[in-house]
Amino acid sequence: MGKTFKLAIVGATGIVGRTALKVLEEKNLPNFEYTLFCSKKSAGTKLEFLGSTYITKELNENSFDEGFDFAIFSAGGETSKKYAPIAASKGCIVVDNSSAFRMDKNVPLVVPEVNSEEITKNCGIIANPNCSTIQAVLPLKALDNKYKLKRVVYSTYQAVSGAGRDGIEDLKNGAKGLLPKKFPHQIYNNCLPHIDVFLDDGYSKEEHKMINETRKILGKPNLPITATTVRVPVFNSHSESINVELENDFNLEDVKQVLANFPGIIVVDNLEKNEYPLATEATGHDEVFVGRIRRDFSVKSGLNLWVVADNIRKGAASNAVQIVEYLYKAVAK
Amino acid sequence: MGKTFKLAIVGATGIVGRTALKVLEEKNLPNFEYTLFCSKKSAGTKLEFLGSTYITKELNENSFDEGFDFAIFSAGGETSKKYAPIAASKGCIVVDNSSAFRMDKNVPLVVPEVNSEEITKNCGIIANPNCSTIQAVLPLKALDNKYKLKRVVYSTYQAVSGAGRDGIEDLKNGAKGLLPKKFPHQIYNNCLPHIDVFLDDGYSKEEHKMINETRKILGKPNLPITATTVRVPVFNSHSESINVELENDFNLEDVKQVLANFPGIIVVDNLEKNEYPLATEATGHDEVFVGRIRRDFSVKSGLNLWVVADNIRKGAASNAVQIVEYLYKAVAK
Repeated sequence: MGKTFKLAIVGATGIVGRTALKVLEEKNLPNFEYTLFCSKKSAGTKLEFLGSTYITKELNENSFDEGFDFAIFSAGGETSKKYAPIAASKGCIVVDNSSAFRMDKNVPLVVPEVNSEEITKNCGIIANPNCSTIQAVLPLKALDNKYKLKRVVYSTYQAVSGAGRDGIEDLKNGAKGLLPKKFPHQIYNNCLPHIDVFLDDGYSKEEHKMINETRKILGKPNLPITATTVRVPVFNSHSESINVELENDFNLEDVKQVLANFPGIIVVDNLEKNEYPLATEATGHDEVFVGRIRRDFSVKSGLNLWVVADNIRKGAASNAVQIVEYLYKAVAK
Repeated sequence: MGKTFKLAIVGATGIVGRTALKVLEEKNLPNFEYTLFCSKKSAGTKLEFLGSTYITKELNENSFDEGFDFAIFSAGGETSKKYAPIAASKGCIVVDNSSAFRMDKNVPLVVPEVNSEEITKNCGIIANPNCSTIQAVLPLKALDNKYKLKRVVYSTYQAVSGAGRDGIEDLKNGAKGLLPKKFPHQIYNNCLPHIDVFLDDGYSKEEHKMINETRKILGKPNLPITATTVRVPVFNSHSESINVELENDFNLEDVKQVLANFPGIIVVDNLEKNEYPLATEATGHDEVFVGRIRRDFSVKSGLNLWVVADNIRKGAASNAVQIVEYLYKAVAK
């Protein structure tokens, strides 16, 4: 019998935490033991998981004394800032869903299909990228490998689940004529060009995340990128219009093949049958769906893509579990 | 007493037709008489207009024998192709909302704030541009005047009202779990990167319209433009993420001033107060709302804009009425 791996789920009662449990159930990793942590407020919540009832525990400074191998943190930046270093100091490798450590030079920012080689370079903390970035970097990496990226223009269509349970409530309540609580304006029947806070240069923090995290994950710190990030009245799965300029010219059929062959990407691009990626169809899946692949005739070696993925699964929970799975396989070898 | 102007509204019972009546009521042009035409199916519909009850008449080949000065056609491409030339041959100036004549070299394609000088060059037919194009060309023209456009990348967030009453029904019904009738997929809780039919180059006809009509209206037949047009679950008013490269460099405050000073544009761009253009706030207005104005640092002289307008009013009915008003004033002088 091999070693037993102890995995802590921090923020187990939140949307991402619960989805992580679902993904872990589906994967059913052998020889894993789980402990579910949450805030004081939610402590004692009973969660059905792997055929048993788990009772969530309040996270505190001694939580990691019992010797965890891995932890997935999905409880917001403040919790991560406070407890991830404690966990790491006790030998636990933390996969952190918050933005707290993403741009830290000592913390790898990982999408396994793109830069899994970074995973083992961690000092106890590995950052899970922002949801809208994760789904974008798969096709961008595929293109960069063969044609070299020159410039990227993002326009996003982001689901309310990215803002947590309150975001979902705002969309539901808006349909009933109630005022929003999470968003600054009604999201029902509206598109809000505003995700996270605005910074001095006129960009939102979400736009900065997409620009900076894309560069870090692709290992191209000077890649020209711009972004407009927009919340749309969709419950789950982000869609993105990505305009790309490539250094090298391409044949469009080759591009489709390059994308289809990349791990984690499913190309959905049959216009005769009205087939293209859709939020409703991506929900519940871990792959990134890419379609509307066509030459942008307005620039040399330009390309337009429509990229859709489940922002709670591939954009957060599944990507984190994939990293844990990678770590476990590296150790179990 | 001056001349009485006779204006025919063709397609008076449709969304655009009814909105044209509303706009005409608001404008209350002096010395105008109206006749309301519609399809055989809707003939006899009673419409309250300017304090009276109008009864719609079925359009036929003799409808224009009674001597109309102007007509606004909003009854689809087939009706325009058949009846607009008949009307024009009888001395009526047609403002056509369909795409039938837009790219015809002899037909001016007009957004009054942008190219009103084209209005009088008509041979009896003036085309009203596509809704998503109209709202875009106001800020683009303002920028072109001062800085010269170099390249434009459009990503749109288009409301279901652009697909008529059936589009609105699809969104309403989708919320009840019913299947769509107008759209190929559920629009409720979804973003469809598909407006109008797809063409051989992988672009939709809507994307072609945006590219070709923008070039024609701006009088720049070779302007590099690309577009991704997307239907979103919003009832009314289109939003657009527009990425622009300019030939000449700019000062951002000057750009905001140039946009604010352009007729028909209202700049809404106060991030401290979370103020930016929104579909819900543009609905019912004739102006084009521009915000999120910021430098695109990924390219020389790049700019990002968020542009919102009521697609049924400025994107169709109000623009057509503005053209009629312009013609009337030219004659009445």
